[in-house]
Amino acid sequence: MTVEKAREELMKLQRKQAAYYHAMVLISYDGDTTAPKETAANRAASLTVLSEEVYILGTGKETVELLEYLDANKDELTEEEQRMTELLIKDIRDMQKIPMEEWIEFQGLLVESQDVWHRAKEHSDFEMFRPYLEKIFETQKKFAGYLAPDKDPYDYWLNEFEDGLSKEVCDSFFAKLRSRIVPLIAKIQEKEQVSDEIRFGYFPEYKQQELSYYIMEHMGLDLGHVGLSTTEHPFTTSLGSHLDERITTHYQENDFASSMYSVIHEGGHALYDTGSPEKYAYTVLDGGVSMGIHESQSRFYENILGRSLAYSKFIFPKLEELFPEEMKGYCPEDLYRAVNKVEPSLIRTEADEVTYSLHVMVRYEIEKAVMAGELEVKDIPARWNELYKEYLGVDVPDDRQGCLQDSHWSGGAIGYFPSYALGSAYGAQFLAKMKETVDVNGCAERGDFGPINLWNREHIWQYGCLYKPGKLLSMVLEGEFDPEYYISYLENKCRDIYGIE
Amino acid sequence: MTVEKAREELMKLQRKQAAYYHAMVLISYDGDTTAPKETAANRAASLTVLSEEVYILGTGKETVELLEYLDANKDELTEEEQRMTELLIKDIRDMQKIPMEEWIEFQGLLVESQDVWHRAKEHSDFEMFRPYLEKIFETQKKFAGYLAPDKDPYDYWLNEFEDGLSKEVCDSFFAKLRSRIVPLIAKIQEKEQVSDEIRFGYFPEYKQQELSYYIMEHMGLDLGHVGLSTTEHPFTTSLGSHLDERITTHYQENDFASSMYSVIHEGGHALYDTGSPEKYAYTVLDGGVSMGIHESQSRFYENILGRSLAYSKFIFPKLEELFPEEMKGYCPEDLYRAVNKVEPSLIRTEADEVTYSLHVMVRYEIEKAVMAGELEVKDIPARWNELYKEYLGVDVPDDRQGCLQDSHWSGGAIGYFPSYALGSAYGAQFLAKMKETVDVNGCAERGDFGPINLWNREHIWQYGCLYKPGKLLSMVLEGEFDPEYYISYLENKCRDIYGIE
Repeated sequence: MTVEKAREELMKLQRKQAAYYHAMVLISYDGDTTAPKETAANRAASLTVLSEEVYILGTGKETVELLEYLDANKDELTEEEQRMTELLIKDIRDMQKIPMEEWIEFQGLLVESQDVWHRAKEHSDFEMFRPYLEKIFETQKKFAGYLAPDKDPYDYWLNEFEDGLSKEVCDSFFAKLRSRIVPLIAKIQEKEQVSDEIRFGYFPEYKQQELSYYIMEHMGLDLGHVGLSTTEHPFTTSLGSHLDERITTHYQENDFASSMYSVIHEGGHALYDTGSPEKYAYTVLDGGVSMGIHESQSRFYENILGRSLAYSKFIFPKLEELFPEEMKGYCPEDLYRAVNKVEPSLIRTEADEVTYSLHVMVRYEIEKAVMAGELEVKDIPARWNELYKEYLGVDVPDDRQGCLQDSHWSGGAIGYFPSYALGSAYGAQFLAKMKETVDVNGCAERGDFGPINLWNREHIWQYGCLYKPGKLLSMVLEGEFDPEYYISYLENKCRDIYGIE
Repeated sequence: MTVEKAREELMKLQRKQAAYYHAMVLISYDGDTTAPKETAANRAASLTVLSEEVYILGTGKETVELLEYLDANKDELTEEEQRMTELLIKDIRDMQKIPMEEWIEFQGLLVESQDVWHRAKEHSDFEMFRPYLEKIFETQKKFAGYLAPDKDPYDYWLNEFEDGLSKEVCDSFFAKLRSRIVPLIAKIQEKEQVSDEIRFGYFPEYKQQELSYYIMEHMGLDLGHVGLSTTEHPFTTSLGSHLDERITTHYQENDFASSMYSVIHEGGHALYDTGSPEKYAYTVLDGGVSMGIHESQSRFYENILGRSLAYSKFIFPKLEELFPEEMKGYCPEDLYRAVNKVEPSLIRTEADEVTYSLHVMVRYEIEKAVMAGELEVKDIPARWNELYKEYLGVDVPDDRQGCLQDSHWSGGAIGYFPSYALGSAYGAQFLAKMKETVDVNGCAERGDFGPINLWNREHIWQYGCLYKPGKLLSMVLEGEFDPEYYISYLENKCRDIYGIE
């Protein structure tokens, strides 16, 4: 083997893996958007085979030898090749630690459990989903044991989703948030509530679809490479590379704002992914580097831009054009207030910015307790409802609007939720940096995200997965992460909307 | 190796192949239905890799040894296992004859060429598509040379799509058809033309969609396993197995009949595929056995049932319910006449039953001439237009409505078209057999296809690919194929619609 040859093989290996991921992700995406209802077993059959092939490819003798050779000769590699080697070696080492049959069995379980969760949610039937969720928690605990025997299992998964994250970090971050947000909510409840009537009425799906494309275009998404589909639970995914990106939304015909903010949120993910350099396509450097950074982008576009008064001024004329009857008598300020109405509620994805992180904390506390063996899966619904009462003061009427509302657990993601809150907090600090050189408000008001996208591209997107999230973060911030930016941002908004001093 | 172990491995091999086909077919299906416009290169990248993997799996030492072992011990296998072995060995022998790089390159070319063809058609720009089509004809000629050096290349491909088919068979079949259809058309042109006004008006897509599902349900399709999407050029495909089947349609808001008959046609394909026994899922015995038999089913449902007076009576009340304004003043007989109006025209998929096979003959003559080196690809448009004038008496205004109208060539299918005409002819003879025991007319009028589906299942669907098409055909017909049934069927219909004696 020569270094030259090994570099070639490195690219070839990644192109091969990308093709398998393309296939597997597409099979899931199809299941979430298009497939007939009773075809989950058929997808599971194919995914089981493909997972096995990926496992064999990733851990095969040839691959291991190649990567060991590259690692031994890393001085001769570019920075990018070094990082590819590092990431691939981590993958291999991880894969080698999990027995193949267990890994493949788990992939099959996830396909089924997602299907069962959909039905369980539909019927608000936690018992239906319980055995799957038990198996998922159990497996992720076991896998964490294989992968990092010396580490606490939940700490392991938190750190997997966001480099550097742990229970300790979360506990202190959430405690700080809670100590400021809870009093803020109390103060709001003493003020007169704002109206969100503008959101509600009759908004036919095909017109909302037109709005989606209008928004996507004005966000600067390249519609030749970014598609939009409908699904039950909005998400974003790349197929094979960032050159084929898909966002999804869910239309509610009585409330246009629900899909509108999903589109801006998922559009933010898509901007980040598709902002990777073209040369990163089909490599492990392609797309976003971590969930926290990803959410920092999606929630930046959704909230900091999308829920600003400036953006309301931009989008309102389009709403008037599409829904002339429903918008009659309203103005951009009404929209601004409506989409920033602070009100403790049941559904995370529909929550306002202020109460949002309380929803995340409920999930965090439950995951932490189950992973520590302090809470049984069968007791999740009761604990969930208790925490919603405690943190948000609301009564959960059923599990559909309670612990069955999110898809994450059914897909095996334990430890993901904190990155939503963390991402929001990163975003607020990014905003402060961005404002040093960009007229963010002016951009939002004109609906011209060009300069904002340029800043994000320059500071974040162009690096793909080249740097560890911690390093990227300190590069962007030119300093330490500080949740104070986020808290101040929320307090400012409440001052603006509710006149709280 | 023991026979028991080999049988297990045989099933495992097929499950693996099925997963790859699932992935590859889904990537193409996604391209045809959902993917953003500029993502063809991304699909090509993944398909190239997956084709290579399939090639390696199919021709690898392990596979070859397994199949040779099974072949040597075939007396101990069931009839089904014998047929699986036979089909897989044919695949391997074929694959081994084509150099891997050439095969893989061709798969990549096909993805691109389908994309280019779409755009070429949109702009009616044959020159754009020409280099791809040249390469496709050239490759299929070369591949036929590898696969059957002693055989005429076009004969080879005709026989691949339909067992037993050749230029000789086609020439005699088409000559017979032409000798009876051309005078029939001449007679019709002396009669008063029927009105097809009922088809035209304004039929919103979402209402046509409702019609599609109504039709699918009443055809007896299991909507839990059969999905519907929209595309430019309707087709049907299985994903991994017949347990996940997809049909597609294309809505024209000014003409409901266009999509309606696409849905019935594609629904016929889907009935055939999903009629395979469940145990055939993930094996080479799954789904329809040949293009001719497949078209016999799709065109049976579309034409023999769908364009009958009885079916018009069944579907008309639904049309009235969905489109009350547009249906005002019409009756089922108007629909029957409209969808059986005989009129030489430009577009094959929109053609009436009588002129349809003339469209097929144009394509057959062109393929035959190009494969024989008697016609250059660059001269296809001129020849196409000449033949349309000669066979159908129509002037082709542009290539979009001429030689660029069909997707088949861009997907590499040379020799497919004759199976449409052949399938129609099979169907007419099946009808005669079916009528011996089934009240076909009564079923169509009630919109209850149960007894018809049962007959087809019993005689055709349940066998999947177990028998060669020739054998299956003679089992169904209990005798020889005779195009006279088809010709009489067409003559009868013209008698009914136009009063021709």
